[in-house]
Amino acid sequence: MSSMETDAKLRLIGVVEKSGREESRLRVFSEFCAGLKRIEHFSHIIVLYWAHKRDNPEERKVLLVYPKRHAEKTLMGVFACRSPSRPNPIGLCIVELVKVEGCTLTVKGLDAFENTPLIDIKPYIPRNDSIPDARVPNWTSRGPPT
Amino acid sequence: MSSMETDAKLRLIGVVEKSGREESRLRVFSEFCAGLKRIEHFSHIIVLYWAHKRDNPEERKVLLVYPKRHAEKTLMGVFACRSPSRPNPIGLCIVELVKVEGCTLTVKGLDAFENTPLIDIKPYIPRNDSIPDARVPNWTSRGPPT
Repeated sequence: MSSMETDAKLRLIGVVEKSGREESRLRVFSEFCAGLKRIEHFSHIIVLYWAHKRDNPEERKVLLVYPKRHAEKTLMGVFACRSPSRPNPIGLCIVELVKVEGCTLTVKGLDAFENTPLIDIKPYIPRNDSIPDARVPNWTSRGPPT
Repeated sequence: MSSMETDAKLRLIGVVEKSGREESRLRVFSEFCAGLKRIEHFSHIIVLYWAHKRDNPEERKVLLVYPKRHAEKTLMGVFACRSPSRPNPIGLCIVELVKVEGCTLTVKGLDAFENTPLIDIKPYIPRNDSIPDARVPNWTSRGPPT
């Protein structure tokens, strides 16, 4: 298998309609809206978005970064930090699901800009997804969470 | 913004070389290998893969499913479960990072088939990613975790 670009085609399933320090609003496009059925059974969701501002050849070539907003200068691979500059500018954020109204989700804790396209939403299931004692380097405990 | 297919082009950054009940092996393609620098500072990583067996027009139209391998018959939206049939067949799995050797990662707990393409790897940071008391419906506690 080669590393060439692939036929794998992303579809945009929605958009960050409003991004706030407290609450943000996600709008799922009407043709995908049925996919939200019973999502309110979950208190938290995993939001995958396309960091479109980083979708250019230069940013997608970046493989090493000094994680921003962290004082310590440790050069990290992009797969070892949450930099939005990476081969596929996919952002991942776990947020609290506050409210569901039709195709619109109100969430708390989103780190994406307004107008960012959404590519997937998944329920957060602690049995799979919560590892409270995972080991991390010290710098991850300072500055903003992502 | 429309929901049409987008210019957002995915690149395959690696492949699931071996998938085992205990350990699995991920190979990052050599041109992206520098992106792994210092990933061994983390005990767990988030693996994003392209569930290529579901990458066909029919599976990508699926918006409602009865989550497999769970006894209860509750119709769920694909964004409210972890079904690999969904508009973008992106799989997400949090795994223990056992060993790093060059461009190869040995991990524990991966739910992807052999030969599955990788699209991103991120470090797991409990401060962002661990929500032990997130609320879920009962059916998620039965059967295999994903």
